[in-house]
Amino acid sequence: MSGSGKLIGVGTGPGDPELLTVKAVKTIETADVVAYFAKQGRAGNGKAIVEHLLTSDTTLLPLYYPVTTEIDKNEAAYRSQITAFYDQSAAIVAGHLDAGRTVAVLSEGDPLFYGSYMHLHVRLADRYPTQVIPGITAMSGCWSVAGIPIVQGDDVLSVLPGTMAEAELQRRLVDTQAAVIMKVGRNLPKIRRALAASGRLSEAVYVERGTMANAAMVKLADRPDGDAPYFSLVLVPGWESNR
Amino acid sequence: MSGSGKLIGVGTGPGDPELLTVKAVKTIETADVVAYFAKQGRAGNGKAIVEHLLTSDTTLLPLYYPVTTEIDKNEAAYRSQITAFYDQSAAIVAGHLDAGRTVAVLSEGDPLFYGSYMHLHVRLADRYPTQVIPGITAMSGCWSVAGIPIVQGDDVLSVLPGTMAEAELQRRLVDTQAAVIMKVGRNLPKIRRALAASGRLSEAVYVERGTMANAAMVKLADRPDGDAPYFSLVLVPGWESNR
Repeated sequence: MSGSGKLIGVGTGPGDPELLTVKAVKTIETADVVAYFAKQGRAGNGKAIVEHLLTSDTTLLPLYYPVTTEIDKNEAAYRSQITAFYDQSAAIVAGHLDAGRTVAVLSEGDPLFYGSYMHLHVRLADRYPTQVIPGITAMSGCWSVAGIPIVQGDDVLSVLPGTMAEAELQRRLVDTQAAVIMKVGRNLPKIRRALAASGRLSEAVYVERGTMANAAMVKLADRPDGDAPYFSLVLVPGWESNR
Repeated sequence: MSGSGKLIGVGTGPGDPELLTVKAVKTIETADVVAYFAKQGRAGNGKAIVEHLLTSDTTLLPLYYPVTTEIDKNEAAYRSQITAFYDQSAAIVAGHLDAGRTVAVLSEGDPLFYGSYMHLHVRLADRYPTQVIPGITAMSGCWSVAGIPIVQGDDVLSVLPGTMAEAELQRRLVDTQAAVIMKVGRNLPKIRRALAASGRLSEAVYVERGTMANAAMVKLADRPDGDAPYFSLVLVPGWESNR
């Protein structure tokens, strides 16, 4: 391990460059290599947030997801293609680490909270000096922009993927004080029905982006179904004083 | 509202001053008044994190909790004393806002996630221009220090107070992929029993502080019961690849 570089997972927060931590800024400014996941032909949101920190000395390492839109996500072929991609990405990063370079891997939100960085972490953290710099999660960004106190005292918070079955979502909404529903997108009509059936629809707030610049929020009851970005969230506040 | 100052809830993160956001740093440096909650005779953890940002021009406004240790927290007398304290604190802050001053209220972790700031927010946000700057939560700080991928894909995360009844805690631990158990302290023996009964004890990690400087973490199964700080956490990772 001696002589090797350092792997650093860096949380870049919900979108506003000013929501980077001081530690993230220093790490990105001084890293030899800045790596980030992106879709083919896209710049990568994580990179856009840190653009102003990159210098001519920074080696950029984009890790482009394989084009797998034609394969169903639940198919074995998709799984094996994605696993191969993460293996290959880890090998490329390991090459830089072996050469003694510090590699900062950008991760939107918080690296270990639903972040792509985790796929590199589990492949490399046992073999190289590793550090994780937490970031502001999208959900924190959203409830802050909306000014919604989400949990207080002994409240239970449930973070739920909007992909789950309607009955399951309904059951969990009944069984919690507060909820954050992620991965809204085309699941919005189902999420609305589950909220209504659990008696929580009137409290629910839909937030489109947790950035300060272009955030949109509205009571879910007032928002029609239809196009909702995948990264939008639904917040169900728990704190009684908030109702 | 014109001519009035601005109320800003500022998340100060889990303890490391470098985990302040850039926006929090700028806000604290330029605020007319920096307010913070503290126990009588204590400096206040939130203030310690931002000490280096305060100038001779900053007006410090400590808000000292009433000494109520002799009253049970569930008693009406405690409730009314605490409510009166928050009312009075809001009135003092409102005085500064009416005088046109910007008041930054420090909040450890994230202001709207179990934070004391919320008590000022619900009393003042309707009447004054208000902004909330999210902060790194204690739980993000903890899983980052521990290097534990907490949730991925379609995992459900449950944030549970260690104060809840043992059977209820056990039921919820069986019903979730990942969990963060807050308010550990003297609830540790109960939490351990609930984890064992739900089959999750071997996965659980105990983290004593989410700061980089003096963090302590250990597999819960390897830690004896006994003194655990109130602000320690137990993490139960959800991601399968992590097990």
